[in-house]
Amino acid sequence: MESKYVPDCKAFDAQKMRKVNLFETERLFCDLYCFEPGQEQKAHTHGGADKIYYVLEGRGTFHIGGESRELGPQSIVMAPAGVAHGVVNPGPERLVLLVYMAPKP
Amino acid sequence: MESKYVPDCKAFDAQKMRKVNLFETERLFCDLYCFEPGQEQKAHTHGGADKIYYVLEGRGTFHIGGESRELGPQSIVMAPAGVAHGVVNPGPERLVLLVYMAPKP
Repeated sequence: MESKYVPDCKAFDAQKMRKVNLFETERLFCDLYCFEPGQEQKAHTHGGADKIYYVLEGRGTFHIGGESRELGPQSIVMAPAGVAHGVVNPGPERLVLLVYMAPKP
Repeated sequence: MESKYVPDCKAFDAQKMRKVNLFETERLFCDLYCFEPGQEQKAHTHGGADKIYYVLEGRGTFHIGGESRELGPQSIVMAPAGVAHGVVNPGPERLVLLVYMAPKP
């Protein structure tokens, strides 16, 4: 059985937002996205895949389909297929997101 | 933008484990599974879909592919397609899981 304790998987990179893969199959992936203050994932679009973000710690400013919203721990948000989406960590804390995407792009 | 504050979505049923849908598309679903002590989701199999469980609160005994493991908050585990999986809440606390599955069965 493949189980992981998520706090042990966190990893940060001073240069850019760090992705840590937790699970990957032919059908989906599940990653941690770890942002230092000020780091971001620039807006981009996946034609045929939905992405779900769950905020584990810190606060993120989510830009999805032309809307922006700041969300904190225990919030969840979806970027549906075909909709531009990006995330910025406004700081001052680190931001950690559990990210799920299917199908795998 | 469709965002939710997960603690506000929790709901329990004295009769059986309660599922609360958070997001659903043609490609995936994302649910909360809410268990009172002693409640369970019996072992079952999805032929072509992977399921990921993330423990939000409480402790669960996960039965996946003939193995059993008790996991607590901030643990994550996958039941790959074709592998029998079930969950029991051994108590005494409530158990809440964030569950992703793709593709939608």
